[in-house]
Amino acid sequence: MSEPLPKPNRWFNYPIRVQPHHTDYGGVVWHGSYITWMESARVECLRAAGLSFEQFVQLGYDLPVVALDIRYRQPLRLGVEAMVKTQLEPVKGVRLNWHYKIESIEPVPQLCVSGQVSLVTVNVRDRKIVRRLPAEIKTVIAQIEGYFQQLEA
Amino acid sequence: MSEPLPKPNRWFNYPIRVQPHHTDYGGVVWHGSYITWMESARVECLRAAGLSFEQFVQLGYDLPVVALDIRYRQPLRLGVEAMVKTQLEPVKGVRLNWHYKIESIEPVPQLCVSGQVSLVTVNVRDRKIVRRLPAEIKTVIAQIEGYFQQLEA
Amino acid sequence: MSEPLPKPNRWFNYPIRVQPHHTDYGGVVWHGSYITWMESARVECLRAAGLSFEQFVQLGYDLPVVALDIRYRQPLRLGVEAMVKTQLEPVKGVRLNWHYKIESIEPVPQLCVSGQVSLVTVNVRDRKIVRRLPAEIKTVIAQIEGYFQQLEA
Amino acid sequence: MSEPLPKPNRWFNYPIRVQPHHTDYGGVVWHGSYITWMESARVECLRAAGLSFEQFVQLGYDLPVVALDIRYRQPLRLGVEAMVKTQLEPVKGVRLNWHYKIESIEPVPQLCVSGQVSLVTVNVRDRKIVRRLPAEIKTVIAQIEGYFQQLEA
Repeated sequence: MSEPLPKPNRWFNYPIRVQPHHTDYGGVVWHGSYITWMESARVECLRAAGLSFEQFVQLGYDLPVVALDIRYRQPLRLGVEAMVKTQLEPVKGVRLNWHYKIESIEPVPQLCVSGQVSLVTVNVRDRKIVRRLPAEIKTVIAQIEGYFQQLEA
Repeated sequence: MSEPLPKPNRWFNYPIRVQPHHTDYGGVVWHGSYITWMESARVECLRAAGLSFEQFVQLGYDLPVVALDIRYRQPLRLGVEAMVKTQLEPVKGVRLNWHYKIESIEPVPQLCVSGQVSLVTVNVRDRKIVRRLPAEIKTVIAQIEGYFQQLEA
Repeated sequence: MSEPLPKPNRWFNYPIRVQPHHTDYGGVVWHGSYITWMESARVECLRAAGLSFEQFVQLGYDLPVVALDIRYRQPLRLGVEAMVKTQLEPVKGVRLNWHYKIESIEPVPQLCVSGQVSLVTVNVRDRKIVRRLPAEIKTVIAQIEGYFQQLEA
Repeated sequence: MSEPLPKPNRWFNYPIRVQPHHTDYGGVVWHGSYITWMESARVECLRAAGLSFEQFVQLGYDLPVVALDIRYRQPLRLGVEAMVKTQLEPVKGVRLNWHYKIESIEPVPQLCVSGQVSLVTVNVRDRKIVRRLPAEIKTVIAQIEGYFQQLEA
């Protein structure tokens, strides 16, 4: 995945707290638990930008993940609060590329995890990629891009 | 849920191993992880008895859990092997009642978890309970009961 | 588990939203996903009452679940918001008994799941039950009970 | 991560079956579920090569994931069987780089997921990277490499 320089103030923020079920025997967050937070942040960012994901699914579409890249820098421990920050790259083709940073909050913000996730639109029925985006999806993407530009302003 | 005395040799056996993602900060299995094993054991027992659960779903039915009772007696630790034992109570109404024992294997078998899970048949479309079981499901239940009687013989 | 009548205004409220990772092939919440919400609600209720669970663990204690009873009444669907309501039964022995109700919010509140979870205090080292509660834990339980009485007032 | 050509016959095979808890509303495996299978395959590969991961942890070490790259090519559906294939890259520094292929089995083998996972050895106590590998770990890595060469022979 290409990695354009993210603009610092375009991040959507999704706060989380590490609960027992997120940890493993080491007392830190199990590496797969981050995926649930990254998904929640993405879905809530879409919602903030005007797209209800469940309505999108009811329309007969899905947005499966086609690529996932994560770098784990610092572990998060039981009970700590962190911020999942996400950002949508300007959309050029069929892929939606989301960038991520997960930062612990106290005592000072520290980058713990960074990553990228790519999604494509498919038909639920045959799970084939939707290459010519339907008008309703284009509208939504325009809304999301507008949303991020507004964050930036 | 009623608790008829389970006959000792009617258990379907499903072996598992505790992996890192099953554990929590305490180094033992997180209490919710057992639910995944109980489900896998149940689905594989149905398969052994002749019911492919995915075909059942394709026919437009589902088997949601309506009740779950678990007693945790001894923790299972990272890396140990255990046996999930399950048994279907003779079916009288719309509920399928499954009994469970989860036993560690070494150094000697030890009862770690016991439980019961009740399921009902619903239509996928409206998720309403199917009270008059379709012929195809009755056949399957008869097969399952025959399967358990065969285990017993 | 005993089931004393819960007083209606003693509930601690923990809001959740159904995300894709909570669902299964049926488009509704997978029955094990509720366990994560019930745990988060309990930990955050303890925190609101003055107990940081992670400090409790650092002191060398743990609070494993010894019993879990759940009744599933109505499924929760992708995208809906719900309220996890929990309540601690007055503590008499070594068990902490928590009652639960999970209610959907829109269009009108509807009871979807009810349940009980029992915990005991153990030493992390040998995982033996702590029968004579240390002063620091007694203080915390008193705080929690005070917290619930305050909710009730 | 570098991507040396994997030798075709050096794969460790770990079979899985898609259960209800692995799926999401789309009826296919949720993208995070693959991480649990990749972990299980890795731990069982280490075990086959002579390393009991739980003993490794008891010695005071851990093997956290520091990087994860996954490409999702074809979805796996409820009930299907698949093979998780993994391979350890020859170890040069502190990183253990594992390659993965997940293939459906029927009607013909099909590549569904590919990926790489990198781990480092840390002390459990301070979670600092162990740069000069202790003799016991070197022995284990030599064993693993021997194991893979044996697969190749």
